[in-house]
Amino acid sequence: MKAIRLHAYDRSPVVEEVPEPVLSSPLDVIVEIGGAGLCRTDLHIVEGQWEQKSGVKLPYTLGHENAGWVRETGSGVTHVSPGDPVILHPLATCGLCRPCRSGDDVHCANSAFPGIDSDGGMAELLLTKARSVVKLDAALRPADVAALADAGLTAYHAVRKAVPLLYPGTVAVVIGAGGLGHIGIQCLKALTAAQVVVVDRSAEALDLAAELGADHTVQADGRQIEAVKDLTGGEGADVVLDFVGERGTEAEGVAMVRRAGSYYVIGYGGEVRIPTIDIISSEINVIGNLVGSYNDLDELMTLAAQDKVRLHTRTYPLDAVADAIADLEAGRLRGRGILVPSKEQ
Amino acid sequence: MKAIRLHAYDRSPVVEEVPEPVLSSPLDVIVEIGGAGLCRTDLHIVEGQWEQKSGVKLPYTLGHENAGWVRETGSGVTHVSPGDPVILHPLATCGLCRPCRSGDDVHCANSAFPGIDSDGGMAELLLTKARSVVKLDAALRPADVAALADAGLTAYHAVRKAVPLLYPGTVAVVIGAGGLGHIGIQCLKALTAAQVVVVDRSAEALDLAAELGADHTVQADGRQIEAVKDLTGGEGADVVLDFVGERGTEAEGVAMVRRAGSYYVIGYGGEVRIPTIDIISSEINVIGNLVGSYNDLDELMTLAAQDKVRLHTRTYPLDAVADAIADLEAGRLRGRGILVPSKEQ
Amino acid sequence: MKAIRLHAYDRSPVVEEVPEPVLSSPLDVIVEIGGAGLCRTDLHIVEGQWEQKSGVKLPYTLGHENAGWVRETGSGVTHVSPGDPVILHPLATCGLCRPCRSGDDVHCANSAFPGIDSDGGMAELLLTKARSVVKLDAALRPADVAALADAGLTAYHAVRKAVPLLYPGTVAVVIGAGGLGHIGIQCLKALTAAQVVVVDRSAEALDLAAELGADHTVQADGRQIEAVKDLTGGEGADVVLDFVGERGTEAEGVAMVRRAGSYYVIGYGGEVRIPTIDIISSEINVIGNLVGSYNDLDELMTLAAQDKVRLHTRTYPLDAVADAIADLEAGRLRGRGILVPSKEQ
Amino acid sequence: MKAIRLHAYDRSPVVEEVPEPVLSSPLDVIVEIGGAGLCRTDLHIVEGQWEQKSGVKLPYTLGHENAGWVRETGSGVTHVSPGDPVILHPLATCGLCRPCRSGDDVHCANSAFPGIDSDGGMAELLLTKARSVVKLDAALRPADVAALADAGLTAYHAVRKAVPLLYPGTVAVVIGAGGLGHIGIQCLKALTAAQVVVVDRSAEALDLAAELGADHTVQADGRQIEAVKDLTGGEGADVVLDFVGERGTEAEGVAMVRRAGSYYVIGYGGEVRIPTIDIISSEINVIGNLVGSYNDLDELMTLAAQDKVRLHTRTYPLDAVADAIADLEAGRLRGRGILVPSKEQ
Repeated sequence: MKAIRLHAYDRSPVVEEVPEPVLSSPLDVIVEIGGAGLCRTDLHIVEGQWEQKSGVKLPYTLGHENAGWVRETGSGVTHVSPGDPVILHPLATCGLCRPCRSGDDVHCANSAFPGIDSDGGMAELLLTKARSVVKLDAALRPADVAALADAGLTAYHAVRKAVPLLYPGTVAVVIGAGGLGHIGIQCLKALTAAQVVVVDRSAEALDLAAELGADHTVQADGRQIEAVKDLTGGEGADVVLDFVGERGTEAEGVAMVRRAGSYYVIGYGGEVRIPTIDIISSEINVIGNLVGSYNDLDELMTLAAQDKVRLHTRTYPLDAVADAIADLEAGRLRGRGILVPSKEQ
Repeated sequence: MKAIRLHAYDRSPVVEEVPEPVLSSPLDVIVEIGGAGLCRTDLHIVEGQWEQKSGVKLPYTLGHENAGWVRETGSGVTHVSPGDPVILHPLATCGLCRPCRSGDDVHCANSAFPGIDSDGGMAELLLTKARSVVKLDAALRPADVAALADAGLTAYHAVRKAVPLLYPGTVAVVIGAGGLGHIGIQCLKALTAAQVVVVDRSAEALDLAAELGADHTVQADGRQIEAVKDLTGGEGADVVLDFVGERGTEAEGVAMVRRAGSYYVIGYGGEVRIPTIDIISSEINVIGNLVGSYNDLDELMTLAAQDKVRLHTRTYPLDAVADAIADLEAGRLRGRGILVPSKEQ
Repeated sequence: MKAIRLHAYDRSPVVEEVPEPVLSSPLDVIVEIGGAGLCRTDLHIVEGQWEQKSGVKLPYTLGHENAGWVRETGSGVTHVSPGDPVILHPLATCGLCRPCRSGDDVHCANSAFPGIDSDGGMAELLLTKARSVVKLDAALRPADVAALADAGLTAYHAVRKAVPLLYPGTVAVVIGAGGLGHIGIQCLKALTAAQVVVVDRSAEALDLAAELGADHTVQADGRQIEAVKDLTGGEGADVVLDFVGERGTEAEGVAMVRRAGSYYVIGYGGEVRIPTIDIISSEINVIGNLVGSYNDLDELMTLAAQDKVRLHTRTYPLDAVADAIADLEAGRLRGRGILVPSKEQ
Repeated sequence: MKAIRLHAYDRSPVVEEVPEPVLSSPLDVIVEIGGAGLCRTDLHIVEGQWEQKSGVKLPYTLGHENAGWVRETGSGVTHVSPGDPVILHPLATCGLCRPCRSGDDVHCANSAFPGIDSDGGMAELLLTKARSVVKLDAALRPADVAALADAGLTAYHAVRKAVPLLYPGTVAVVIGAGGLGHIGIQCLKALTAAQVVVVDRSAEALDLAAELGADHTVQADGRQIEAVKDLTGGEGADVVLDFVGERGTEAEGVAMVRRAGSYYVIGYGGEVRIPTIDIISSEINVIGNLVGSYNDLDELMTLAAQDKVRLHTRTYPLDAVADAIADLEAGRLRGRGILVPSKEQ
């Protein structure tokens, strides 16, 4: 079968023939790929930034945002059958540790990460584990949702955690209406009746936010903290979801939170710095957020099937991976690039 | 190996030689049994009451409250190793359905129940699944805790669910200080600062309750509702845990609950009957409770290792199963009977 | 000022002149009534059904669903000012007991109920307490929302309690799409992404339900339990909200609940009867629901201001109270009747 | 009556005669003081550090940790009567804003702080508001518990918030076993079955911690992070409660938290600094904590009445305030100093 393989760091990945995977364990699942998202992490992998961290042995197949159809299942697989459309949770988890047994499988003590530390989904077939496979509604095309498997899932997870705080009359600020943020806005509108205020530097991003249902948009021109205060009677927001997490949003986000409010860190690169007296005197919280759980992905796919969350995508055949990478690097790609095996075109 | 097998309903189970089990799947685990609890359910099985429900094919090995040491593990087992002392969750669950993935594995869509619908643990060895195996603290002897695997787990589960309602100043009523109830009392004292009121017909059971930390005991002499009202300033209890669930406790338990309080059903046999106007005007809740989850069992074993929960037991060698059954039927057994393979004596 | 007063049971209330109320305590508030809802409870009061329960001394002023504008406030009132549009929580609560101090003021140990046990709002002015007064958004007209103060608030409260159970992919069944139920449907759509299935005998009520966003409607023709099972893959609903609570819905509602699901009792008149074995083996819950808290009313008014919850109303001048009552009794009133002092017409 | 009054900053407060307070509003309460705690904040007030912040007009009466007996109540007070022993919540709150109506009255939009910005309790009588008055169990002496009204309440509040995270098998680290920390340890033992690890520089403080039930003590000698890791299988604690919040504990506390764990800030003076990548990759939380609510104080008094929380105190007559201050400044005071009107001696 065809696969997009990385043979050496700082060299372009190549499309080549590799043997088809085979089942070797009762919980194995082989998936015919319908679409594999291309994201900046793939570029960083090629550049060698993940070499130490993943310890993956080259060559290997890229692709960590994968969806398709079940081709074959091991004898212990009870929740999907050949032919089912599926999306794959990014982690393959053990199912035996306390986090796995608590619905918090992202903190699994023994997980693998296909596409990062083992063969991924930029190929015609992917060998994965039953615990990663989420069945899709018949109305969803795998290529349309593949890119929700990682970035979208992270946004959903953060919003989902904030739901109990966001009763009618509350305000949620979204900092950064990019790839993750625009999914976050849609999730907030689907799951809560909170007012959604979106802060971004780009007027174009704010236009998209408004289309997606943002109640207020604020251009980040240096006066964004004041603008949020003005929109909240001087008190600040109940929840701030920071999808940027660097270049000053860490401080701005904290400053936008009201007494007893919560600042959710999702983007990263910067540093949170808060005097302890400010933390206690206003009794605020800083909440970390990683990618979502399997159940989160299942719920996000329900929202996608209900057309409450949508993603802009552009598909490329596997053979055009170089074009896809070039478009991504050059900023020519509006929405997400999806690599699609030829027969799915 | 030796096993206690049922060959026909209404006939005594026999001790006989059967082949040792072997691993056949990566998540299989073989456990050397250190103790298997004998309980009334075993008597009901022998009487044929479970014939239809379980559909088990005779002969088979009894024993659904099992603990011991890991002898051998399949290649996919990561959380226990040969030699580890373990207790077994009563259900073998799939790990793939939503309940399993939410920490609520008792509602698994595809579970089996060893000792009920397949070979159980009254034997020298038991073949089970990785997802049922809870590792024990080195301080715990399997024979001492085996009987917590089902009855004790049910009591713990109900108490655990009630914890958020039981802040300092609240009152929890325990109806029935028998096998489950006396574990429930210990769990309430370990997990909450609530006042614990125990209601039972038996003065002896109430003495044991007081020893275990009950703050007040009430003899069920017909005035028990009034007695609970008197102990709660006329208002009733925040939580009533009914470990009986029949012969009138269903109505008494509801009558003991205060406005906005909750009645937990654990024992069964009777019927809850409440006019809807009484449910809404006092805004009370009726909460069902089944056996606990794997995580619940893990937590209960922590309490046992901390000596916060204890069980009275009496051990019998496998060969003495007839004596154990006779003692249980005749009411001669104080605490729980545990069948122990001879080398563990 | 004019007021609608009841002078004797089983006699029509009359419109007459009474003295204007005056402030006598720092937390008193005088409200110019903009609208007072007329409901079946008012008919029952006239018939004398509440005579014992309320102990009110005749004559007194009817009206327990009230909204208007603040005219005057006591010196301790900090959250509203003269001229503010307001709606009144049905209870005047003490603010000092544990329920009041926990946001659960409906279970206040010392509450009064204007319109039931003291002078109500079918008048030009109402004397109330600061703790009952919810400030309205400037966009809302008191007469449009007055009838949400009791019936609507009850529906909101039940839905609000169910929100944590209703993540994407779950199903909520609404039994009864009448006065409360159709508010419940709107609240479910505003607060959750759950699928909403509405069950009613009336095709007309189901049409309205569909307009308000119900995902599925089921006519209660005797096969409604099966229909709900069919819509939920045979498993039943996560949450059933029973706005009827009599004439068989109590049993049907319980039968529609899935394993570990919850049956919310809101309507009343019947009786819940469930064998304890059914409660524990499927681990279901029965959840009582009374009218909502002050905070609930505040949140519901936010939804109303966001146009997410609407109510059909028909206004009558105070002098036309007899017509309003006649229309209500004859079933000629679509939506809710609202009595409006003449200057507000 | 006698009162301890501050006439000028940087001058010793004096004991003098002032007029007795009188009721002027239905929710007023006059309390005969049984004990008023002296704390470092009082020293800071005398030094003028609070001059700007409080804006209090001199002279005024000190004392913000007060307990005693109700002497007289306004007409609207329903929950206490003359003669009742009481402790006073440090804040006088409005009862009308959303936080007050949610049980979160510490974030009241309109609160006062007697002893800081108005006359306090170092006197024979104190005029306060009904909403501040918590009734005590008859077994408690006001002078014994007065000092729990602020410091103890802060410790309780933080522990109470952490309870849902602290199921059996989890680990809570307490940094700092001083005035607040040693109350925190007692609360953890009373409310949870978690293992409690206490970290402090002082061997004496650790001895006290062990007496109060700490499961492990760790001397802060530079290797405390490693020590906590060793005690938690290399993973870190589920919850870290930092009662110091300065001089490096901010970084150490964060480093002691396990994946998905929470760091509770209670002490202050330092700064929390965490790269956003560390927050998201381990998905940790930073939780701010202020003084507890009225309900928290009520619950803490329940624990005190049950003898689950104790405080070391030393009493001084009002006339000996100079000695009390001198002892506090010189570090001669083990436990807390309590000023007691002479007739209560």
